[in-house]
Amino acid sequence: MLARYNRGAFPTPPMTENLENQSQDDLETHLAQVQSLLARMRLVEELVHRQGGPRQDLVENLVHKQNLAELQRKLDQLHPADVAYILEALPLDERLLVWDLVKAERDGEILLEVSDSVRESLIQTMDKAELLAAAESLDTDEIADIAADLPRDVIEELLTTLDAQKRALLQSALAYPEDTVGALMDFEMVTIRADVTLEVALRYLRRLGELPDQLDKLFVVDRDERLIGVLPLKRLLTTDPEASVAAVMVEDVVQFHPEDEAQEAAQAFERYDLVMAPVVDAVGRLIGRLTIDAVVDYIRESADADMLSMAGLKEEEDLFSTVWRAAKNRWMWLAINLATAFVASRVIGAFEGSIEKLAALAALMPIIAGIGGNSGNQTITLIIRGLALGHITPSNARRLVLKEIGVALLNGLVWGSAVGVFAWLLYDNPALGGVMALAMLLNLLVAALAGIFIPMTLERVKRDPAIGSSVLLTFVTDSMGFFIFLGLATLLLL
Amino acid sequence: MLARYNRGAFPTPPMTENLENQSQDDLETHLAQVQSLLARMRLVEELVHRQGGPRQDLVENLVHKQNLAELQRKLDQLHPADVAYILEALPLDERLLVWDLVKAERDGEILLEVSDSVRESLIQTMDKAELLAAAESLDTDEIADIAADLPRDVIEELLTTLDAQKRALLQSALAYPEDTVGALMDFEMVTIRADVTLEVALRYLRRLGELPDQLDKLFVVDRDERLIGVLPLKRLLTTDPEASVAAVMVEDVVQFHPEDEAQEAAQAFERYDLVMAPVVDAVGRLIGRLTIDAVVDYIRESADADMLSMAGLKEEEDLFSTVWRAAKNRWMWLAINLATAFVASRVIGAFEGSIEKLAALAALMPIIAGIGGNSGNQTITLIIRGLALGHITPSNARRLVLKEIGVALLNGLVWGSAVGVFAWLLYDNPALGGVMALAMLLNLLVAALAGIFIPMTLERVKRDPAIGSSVLLTFVTDSMGFFIFLGLATLLLL
Repeated sequence: MLARYNRGAFPTPPMTENLENQSQDDLETHLAQVQSLLARMRLVEELVHRQGGPRQDLVENLVHKQNLAELQRKLDQLHPADVAYILEALPLDERLLVWDLVKAERDGEILLEVSDSVRESLIQTMDKAELLAAAESLDTDEIADIAADLPRDVIEELLTTLDAQKRALLQSALAYPEDTVGALMDFEMVTIRADVTLEVALRYLRRLGELPDQLDKLFVVDRDERLIGVLPLKRLLTTDPEASVAAVMVEDVVQFHPEDEAQEAAQAFERYDLVMAPVVDAVGRLIGRLTIDAVVDYIRESADADMLSMAGLKEEEDLFSTVWRAAKNRWMWLAINLATAFVASRVIGAFEGSIEKLAALAALMPIIAGIGGNSGNQTITLIIRGLALGHITPSNARRLVLKEIGVALLNGLVWGSAVGVFAWLLYDNPALGGVMALAMLLNLLVAALAGIFIPMTLERVKRDPAIGSSVLLTFVTDSMGFFIFLGLATLLLL
Repeated sequence: MLARYNRGAFPTPPMTENLENQSQDDLETHLAQVQSLLARMRLVEELVHRQGGPRQDLVENLVHKQNLAELQRKLDQLHPADVAYILEALPLDERLLVWDLVKAERDGEILLEVSDSVRESLIQTMDKAELLAAAESLDTDEIADIAADLPRDVIEELLTTLDAQKRALLQSALAYPEDTVGALMDFEMVTIRADVTLEVALRYLRRLGELPDQLDKLFVVDRDERLIGVLPLKRLLTTDPEASVAAVMVEDVVQFHPEDEAQEAAQAFERYDLVMAPVVDAVGRLIGRLTIDAVVDYIRESADADMLSMAGLKEEEDLFSTVWRAAKNRWMWLAINLATAFVASRVIGAFEGSIEKLAALAALMPIIAGIGGNSGNQTITLIIRGLALGHITPSNARRLVLKEIGVALLNGLVWGSAVGVFAWLLYDNPALGGVMALAMLLNLLVAALAGIFIPMTLERVKRDPAIGSSVLLTFVTDSMGFFIFLGLATLLLL
């Protein structure tokens, strides 16, 4: 065999160069058109419900059918990614109406493009036969991407309909954990042998007739499918066709193993400006490829997930999900926050005697806690970022601690004096001002240390420092802020 | 002229396929090696300083030179992006030592790769001649990328050394605002005429001998340089060479204008899985191209910028910047937070009489304010994301408001009851529990409405809702939380 063109043997999606629309403005126009068609349909329905009568019914039916046909025509012209965008922006009832109008053969591609939560809402309305048909229109790696949302019996039936090679591919793709290269890779690659000439390679490509998207190099493999190099298309195009693949190929190649972390692969793609890279097993046999579009989707999704989890949302939320689902998505973090707020409240409770004597303490204490929390969040954000980029190592951690302590001292002097003077003037009580300034300085130091050690400890015990760091920090700065300020006031003022 | 190969006429960076290292682990190994070499050098220096004497000096010099040579060898083997990574992770003194060892001809590429703040620290140590040499080793679009950090006289001298065409390119690249397609595009493209055959195109590419990175299509232009289509390399490779470019090219092409927002172009790249796209002027003349690597860098940088600004950092901060610079980077937001905390403090101050009578109010009020802030932040995060993705439109905003009010009511009943019972049991005061529950419910409603209307208002007045939304929200939920709780308590309990 000279070479192998492995497409996972499923049909390919259409050429992405052929698009009707391109800019966000266009997209929003399409969305607005769909929305106004839907509004028109609602209006007609309402009119009929109000008036009734058999002739009205006839007219309404006619108008309704016209509107549906117009909507369907509109949808048929749109790229699957754009249909997905429109589905995301529609409330559930309208979303399902539009989903019904989408041609069945496009279901698979569109399910791939929508977000997890919206995909769930669409899959719920499909029966087993529809789901099977949709899945069968996809490549194996794409089926693996949506498999988590498919009912178990659909997956099982799907496995029985695939031939042995594709079944093995799908099962291996399903076996890799979510954040690994294995979960992102696909199987659409073109391989070639090292001992042929470029002329032969060119003729071979022409015989294939079509190439996968995002393909910027051929993989050069030996008799045992082991990767021995890559042949960039630009070298193939610019080198004398008489040369052999072996003479032109690049041997030192950025490559990945399926169990590598997706995060590290993404950093390598960014760092080395890659478009695609081979994925090999432990003995160097080629098993798939990773492409920039999968990496970009991963980067976007993990940035989104970080942002959502930092705000205390369990997972991505369908903008139009039911109140009940939305509330459940937010409860865990609210419960945790409530628990930490209770603790902080008990810290204050311990000083109720002092507060009764000097109610000004109650008015001033949130300033100490709040600024501590803000300042600690600045530190924690820099540390989380430094950890993610690999810039923080055991040998430079000491310097970081010194720097953050320095910043906390400087801020403590500047802002501590400011709030001290404020408290002094407001309550005409210089001692209260002094306690305020000292408490601010101390809580900023606590915030700096917590801002460094919380994420570094989470990282050391192999947990994602982006998740939960902030809640822990606020807990520390609140409780300690109240304790330091009320404690100092009780000791020095009362 | 059959076709044009425009490289901005500057030399190209080396092939990115040819790399020594690939994974984050490898990178961290390199960093550790560099760090241990630096540590060894410090040790030798310290020994000599302690012992002194002329012979010692000789030995030290020898060892020092050996170490330097070893370090330099190490650096020479690394990809510019990897040297950049090491520079980012080193404290200032060691960073500058390493920077001195980097071969001058690689300065330009490495300056491109480091972050803005680290680039500043490196440029400060370079004289005008070094900066000119570094800049001249780059493409015009790359010079534009670092121009903001170059001294004005270097830019001016640079402009005089460039020929007319390149000067015009650089000036136009410098003219586009940071977040536009014009600022991200480059000028490395290959153009071709529609009336030639693929055979001629193939021969032409072979004559060029080298192609730019990330090139997956040729641009087809007419006599006036107007873009009339694109010829994907994969079509060029798989179609009969006798066919004409006109017959094979794709005419309906995703294309951008230099003044388009980078954000929208990035979404189009993600949505349509693009590797590269043409940039044209108002009359359709080709002026540059946008590539996926520039888009990925933009996505990463803007996600980082969002994260930093949400945490209240003015800009990206060098991990090892001086205490003074770091403090200045954080002051603006701390000052704003302090101002809002003062207002909240005065709200409490207005109820000092009530607190004196019932100190339990002081202990409970942070719970109301805190949970309101957390809940509002969940809403605001979903809204900011929906706005960024274009999912929120005037016609669906009403539904969103209803959903968030529903979630707030549900949460208010659930969590309000919980804190109400907590307060009742703790203080053996059922009326206090009732006030607590009611205040929680009301503040969650305030939080939901603020969480929707703050980002939507910022968006409507054309400001980035990601910046400042959170501070405003916390201000509202704190002040209103204190006001509602203490106000209700004063009315109903005292």
